Amino acid sequence: MKPHITLITLGVADLDRAIEFYAKGLGLPLKDSPAGVAFFATGSTMLALYPRDKLAEDITIDDDGRGFAGIALAHNVESPEAVDATLAEAVAAGADLVKPGQKVFWGGYSGYFRDPDGFYWEVALNPFL
Amino acid sequence: MKPHITLITLGVADLDRAIEFYAKGLGLPLKDSPAGVAFFATGSTMLALYPRDKLAEDITIDDDGRGFAGIALAHNVESPEAVDATLAEAVAAGADLVKPGQKVFWGGYSGYFRDPDGFYWEVALNPFL
Repeated sequence: MKPHITLITLGVADLDRAIEFYAKGLGLPLKDSPAGVAFFATGSTMLALYPRDKLAEDITIDDDGRGFAGIALAHNVESPEAVDATLAEAVAAGADLVKPGQKVFWGGYSGYFRDPDGFYWEVALNPFL
Repeated sequence: MKPHITLITLGVADLDRAIEFYAKGLGLPLKDSPAGVAFFATGSTMLALYPRDKLAEDITIDDDGRGFAGIALAHNVESPEAVDATLAEAVAAGADLVKPGQKVFWGGYSGYFRDPDGFYWEVALNPFL
């Protein structure tokens, strides 16, 4: 796992309100984004806003209000094989495999693990990066 | 608020276990750290591990198991005045002021706000950076 965090995704209750807060209120530079998600140009680690229920759905967990911090960190790699290898490395180190590496709707390949404290990490290949 | 996230701090139940997972398990490069906290050299946005109860104490909140995601994001600025101005900007945009800007034990000046979804941001001057 190379030492770089690509993305911090905050799961939010109201996407418009959250965009208003970060873009207009704090002045973070909003990037062109697909519908339903917002990305901010915060250097090499981007901040994303995504509806919390859809974030839980993407991770493939239930958001029962307990246990899920409502946030996900992402680490990007260069190939589907590297996604699978990184997930396997995390599991060998004591993480739980939550979502095995798979083709995902936005065109990439990704999976999730949960660290020993319950924080969720996505490991992804994004062919658009 | 300049668009850069300095630090992602995960509040962990067992610091030694978390360091073992991230440093040995995933191979993240551990930096020299003061006792009781671990920093990883993950590019311009660093990952930190800190006991969850101490993170809540630093934010000046109760960690009652609900509401606190167990994570804090940090944005660094250049002066105590810039800390106060950024906190004021966040509050004007709808954030809650949680910890007003103040001198802190590690030698800097920092405060916290809570965003509309309950995520905690530290705004800090770190004279050692």
